[in-house]
Amino acid sequence: MKATQEINLILVEPAGAINLGSVARLCENFGIHELRLVTPHCDPEDQQAKRMAVKGKNFLENAKNFSTLLDAIKDSDRVIATCGRIDHGRIPLYDIDEALPWLLESTDYSSLALVFGREDRGLTNQELQLAHKVISLQTKASYPSLNLSHAVAIVLHELHRLKATKPQRLMGTNVQRNPATPIQLHECIEDAKELLLEIGFLLEHTAQARMTKIKGLLHRAEIKPEEVSLIRGILRQTRWAIHSRKS
Amino acid sequence: MKATQEINLILVEPAGAINLGSVARLCENFGIHELRLVTPHCDPEDQQAKRMAVKGKNFLENAKNFSTLLDAIKDSDRVIATCGRIDHGRIPLYDIDEALPWLLESTDYSSLALVFGREDRGLTNQELQLAHKVISLQTKASYPSLNLSHAVAIVLHELHRLKATKPQRLMGTNVQRNPATPIQLHECIEDAKELLLEIGFLLEHTAQARMTKIKGLLHRAEIKPEEVSLIRGILRQTRWAIHSRKS
Repeated sequence: MKATQEINLILVEPAGAINLGSVARLCENFGIHELRLVTPHCDPEDQQAKRMAVKGKNFLENAKNFSTLLDAIKDSDRVIATCGRIDHGRIPLYDIDEALPWLLESTDYSSLALVFGREDRGLTNQELQLAHKVISLQTKASYPSLNLSHAVAIVLHELHRLKATKPQRLMGTNVQRNPATPIQLHECIEDAKELLLEIGFLLEHTAQARMTKIKGLLHRAEIKPEEVSLIRGILRQTRWAIHSRKS
Repeated sequence: MKATQEINLILVEPAGAINLGSVARLCENFGIHELRLVTPHCDPEDQQAKRMAVKGKNFLENAKNFSTLLDAIKDSDRVIATCGRIDHGRIPLYDIDEALPWLLESTDYSSLALVFGREDRGLTNQELQLAHKVISLQTKASYPSLNLSHAVAIVLHELHRLKATKPQRLMGTNVQRNPATPIQLHECIEDAKELLLEIGFLLEHTAQARMTKIKGLLHRAEIKPEEVSLIRGILRQTRWAIHSRKS
């Protein structure tokens, strides 16, 4: 049994309406429970925010305001903050794939929080220290400053992937059907060999080696029965084309 | 020895200046080699684009324009496209952590391409089929549509993480040669289509669907350049056989 987990997203002093709207869209994309804002410096009602939010507008409308980060995480059982700065004192930084599994480990009903800081200077060291763990996203060393909504996108996607643990991988068109049987493939290859000998593409002494290459290619593709049939159809029609024009 | 790999980011018909600028910033964040635009519907010189790009402005200034996706990936050794749509026909979708390691496997000097589609409707199936692999990002099922720059952020971060943490995966005896380039495969498929139309195996209205199946098979096999040559040889000889006997 999986625990019931609510994940809340907390932005501390977001300043850009475009960012705020973008984050709201991400909340909808990744099934976030609630968007919380700590003294926002932009308006969730801003037209640009709404436009960027697309189907995440409800997160803008229902965003809760708090005056400090501490207030915003009061009911949270586990809190992860993010840090893009280099001068984070002695606060240890975790990689995303170390910290996020820990967030999901809680077993009972849990309220989990992800905290993102200001666009220009992130979270203060004091704010970082309110979190259980602080993660830092890997970027090119010379320009580590990610746009706020991009940082949110990366973290939420990773968290969602961890939660999903891929049970649906085998659905839909990705269903792994059985490949063609060895005998189907063998007969197809023999059929092709005969034709290729007839038209002079293969010589008796090169036929085996070349057909082995083609067989290797089809094996690698795990060719399906219907694809074997398709190739047999091509062979039949080619034979017909050659012979009909001959006579 | 680490392979020299250049990663180019390709946007097909981007329409929003904010998105374009955001993506330029990401190019700088994650060490992309070149930003390529296929018939962009917005201006890289737009003020809003520049503002969003911050330190990635150089990618806007140096962005190269192409008129088709095929042109944009002509020099690419390995190509991965992204798909957010559900109606992607029979094109198999990979998870990000299956496809991206494959992209980095190439050992020699390689030009790698990541392709992202239009904001509103992504890439066409025909465009998707130009790529070696197509990835789909996991989101909440009820709202899978990610903002373009968020999708780019997620993919580039994952790629960067793979490059940073697993350099030894790319070395050693398991040398993976590059598969045939999209253009090689495309020309081969076109060549085959012509012949199969000529001999009446394909009809004009079924040609596209059938050739798509064959292309899918060859993509799955990660067909090599020398195997493409083998097939082209067969096509040539078959053509000769048909015409020589006709006269």
